[in-house]
Amino acid sequence: MSKKDERPRPEARLPKGLFDISAGEIRATQAMLGTIRTVFESYGFEPLDTPAIEYTDALGKFLPDQDRPNEGVFSFQDDDDQWLSLRYDLTAPLARYVAENYQTLPKPFRRYQSGPVWRNEKPGPGRFRQFTQFDADTVGASSIAADAELCMLAADTLEALGIPRGQYVIKVNSRKVLDGVLESVRLGGGGNAAKRLVVLRAIDKLDRLEIGGVRALLGKGRTDESGDFTKGAELDHSQIESLTHYLSWKASKVGLNSGALDQLTGTFAENETFRGGVAELRALTALTDGANYQDRIRVDPSVVRGLEYYTGPVFEAELLAPIKDERGQPIRLGSVVSGGRYDGLVERFTGEKVPATGVSIGVSRLLFGLQRLGKFQESAAQGPVVVLVLDRDRTADYQKLAQTLRAAGIRAELYLGESGMKAQMKYADRRASPCVVIQGGDERAKGEVTIKDLILGATLTETKDRDEYLKKQAEAQFSVPESDLVNAVRRVLARHKA
Amino acid sequence: MSKKDERPRPEARLPKGLFDISAGEIRATQAMLGTIRTVFESYGFEPLDTPAIEYTDALGKFLPDQDRPNEGVFSFQDDDDQWLSLRYDLTAPLARYVAENYQTLPKPFRRYQSGPVWRNEKPGPGRFRQFTQFDADTVGASSIAADAELCMLAADTLEALGIPRGQYVIKVNSRKVLDGVLESVRLGGGGNAAKRLVVLRAIDKLDRLEIGGVRALLGKGRTDESGDFTKGAELDHSQIESLTHYLSWKASKVGLNSGALDQLTGTFAENETFRGGVAELRALTALTDGANYQDRIRVDPSVVRGLEYYTGPVFEAELLAPIKDERGQPIRLGSVVSGGRYDGLVERFTGEKVPATGVSIGVSRLLFGLQRLGKFQESAAQGPVVVLVLDRDRTADYQKLAQTLRAAGIRAELYLGESGMKAQMKYADRRASPCVVIQGGDERAKGEVTIKDLILGATLTETKDRDEYLKKQAEAQFSVPESDLVNAVRRVLARHKA
Repeated sequence: MSKKDERPRPEARLPKGLFDISAGEIRATQAMLGTIRTVFESYGFEPLDTPAIEYTDALGKFLPDQDRPNEGVFSFQDDDDQWLSLRYDLTAPLARYVAENYQTLPKPFRRYQSGPVWRNEKPGPGRFRQFTQFDADTVGASSIAADAELCMLAADTLEALGIPRGQYVIKVNSRKVLDGVLESVRLGGGGNAAKRLVVLRAIDKLDRLEIGGVRALLGKGRTDESGDFTKGAELDHSQIESLTHYLSWKASKVGLNSGALDQLTGTFAENETFRGGVAELRALTALTDGANYQDRIRVDPSVVRGLEYYTGPVFEAELLAPIKDERGQPIRLGSVVSGGRYDGLVERFTGEKVPATGVSIGVSRLLFGLQRLGKFQESAAQGPVVVLVLDRDRTADYQKLAQTLRAAGIRAELYLGESGMKAQMKYADRRASPCVVIQGGDERAKGEVTIKDLILGATLTETKDRDEYLKKQAEAQFSVPESDLVNAVRRVLARHKA
Repeated sequence: MSKKDERPRPEARLPKGLFDISAGEIRATQAMLGTIRTVFESYGFEPLDTPAIEYTDALGKFLPDQDRPNEGVFSFQDDDDQWLSLRYDLTAPLARYVAENYQTLPKPFRRYQSGPVWRNEKPGPGRFRQFTQFDADTVGASSIAADAELCMLAADTLEALGIPRGQYVIKVNSRKVLDGVLESVRLGGGGNAAKRLVVLRAIDKLDRLEIGGVRALLGKGRTDESGDFTKGAELDHSQIESLTHYLSWKASKVGLNSGALDQLTGTFAENETFRGGVAELRALTALTDGANYQDRIRVDPSVVRGLEYYTGPVFEAELLAPIKDERGQPIRLGSVVSGGRYDGLVERFTGEKVPATGVSIGVSRLLFGLQRLGKFQESAAQGPVVVLVLDRDRTADYQKLAQTLRAAGIRAELYLGESGMKAQMKYADRRASPCVVIQGGDERAKGEVTIKDLILGATLTETKDRDEYLKKQAEAQFSVPESDLVNAVRRVLARHKA
């Protein structure tokens, strides 16, 4: 009934920027997500799931680097012609959920959510069109304690994942500080919106380009290593000097947050927005310093965060240990956790102010960083015991052997292919099988099964001493009565327990 | 910088057929998925994840009830004008993955995958446009033992989830049996494809409509309770009689599978396709009967399975215990696990035969069924201990109390709202908090904290005896030195351990 013969053969391939995930990476990811979940739950956050598809207008357009309409988001029309989109983050759907269910939620409302998000952007190295985020948000709390708590949550999460104190930092800034700085260099107001965006993007690159590169982007522009030219913001000399002064503060590594803030205040103190931002940072760091996080949570004026919806404190976490790629080249991982306050997102729907703040973990980036630091390795799970099929007419008997092992809680499978003994042994190796179970005619006649320990067997060739060789060989392959199958396999598994 | 004021307010709502998932349902689902994963792993299956988006041509069109092109699947165009779709199941992406990676996979290749799929269909009761499937497939095994194993896997999974033997059944049929029956009533060949589809859909409804309803659909058609008329296949009398005879076999409840198959063979035995299908079922049930699954895995000629890609054995699992909805009305849940052999899916890409068979669990439907049977209840997780904020200037101190509890492994949160004592107590109740921690001026002066046991406190009003009341009251609210906070909270939690 299939029409396959009439159609050309499709090519088996994935669209660019989309990837399959292997068993090893799935297991590592699950372990990491489990740890994150435990920390988030310990702070009182509750899980919520929202669907992948939302109305386009409900999600809004808050992505960075999104100059053309419809860019950045996968969108399509419903039967009734309304536009639908795949979520590009977990925050916009949360705002929709809160606006829809506001009356029935406990307030403040603490929720966590983990799941894939989609970005319809040009994929590049480390850029994916589908990736997983793990978010925690507190909605309905205007208190700066909510922001401080999320910074501490981020720190606790990284430590729970095995990053030692001192090997990571949570950097905090405020959108109000940035807005105040921009206002005081005459970049406030609606007419400067485009220029302001260019300036913020330039500041955001301080880590990567250092101050020289950022100055070029604030001025005429910059040619990168590949020869591509990026047009600058074309600020004048005094504007560039002021911004440099603001950013140079970062490099000074002033110890405690409050001392650093004193120094920052002196410079732009005439601007009211700026002063409001500094007061916010003072209140936030008073809480985190007070809880002894001053060595992990630090004010950093270069933190920008690209998403347009932030309105107050913004923060990001960075791993400080040098990270190298597979070829030993150092790589810049970027922030592994990021977040901030977005007091306007629910208001978009309801017209009423609902303060909110949240953090988001970039799951694959964090896992990559952790793995490069030796954590959450993709050690293959122990493979299944493989029951070989020597006589196809006796498949039912072999299946019963596998079933007996499984019933005893042992991971076991029947070989289901068509190949002979040698290929079956190779298959068992590929499956990282600890041992195989064999029952040929001889064994069957005696009511026995033979067990072959593949891990011990693999070491046989290294054994030079003849007596030792014979002893090992006897251990690596032996026969037992069929009724002793489970115990014998358990003995072999016990030999190789990690 | 926001343009929100220029735009009309979006409405906070979800597109039809899409739903948010609550904390309770998420926790129940996670527990259920964990059990399924354990069983699948015990059979040697390995996890794989594929992205939500695939090339439309790679997915193919195999959905049931899909009469118009593009129906059933969410599709959109990429920048390069190629069509992309959201996956509608996990089998089509697996076929793409296997075709793409065939050389490097162990063969046979056993994989499991769990994740959301999307169907762009008219949503109705129990019909969702996003839902989760949990699949296990064996690729590269033509042996009927692979199909038998999946039927046993389905049975083992249901028992691991708490469904007792006898309260579920795995029903098995073969596409070849169905094809043979259709051929022998002169419905074979390309010209009859449309009519064959109507007949298969009618047979698929035997459970719901019983033989009378199916006969109407095989003939002129049928008017349902709502008055809607469904056009029938317009078969002639002898065709309808033959098919009725085939289906009546089901009702006879013939004990063992082999006896039943003997009876079935007699009827259509002249047709070769039919005989091939019966031989398949004989081999399959020989394996499952041999492993003592004859009371759980039964041949059933009415099993059709809608997906177009099946080529051999098809199977589905059904819960037999009567299931009632919230109002006590009995409901027909339908199959909770389904699957079959699809030897042509990988060949679509490569031109080479790669036999494959798999099962798919409908996660929400199964969870719903299990919950109606009293399993995987959404008992709320124990809420966090809530630290109240009596004096906002001392937020840092309160935060430290919460942090101290968390550091001791106790789920705890700081109240982050603006409201007074009474509202905070109400909030703690909403959060299912076992107890709150209070530190007012008096306690602080004495270096103490007060702990209020909300669960014990709630029982106070029921206590009539004065002495008992006073004793209980003292237990429900008491003060301890701040240094004893963790121990005191632990004592309260121990009182209410499930």
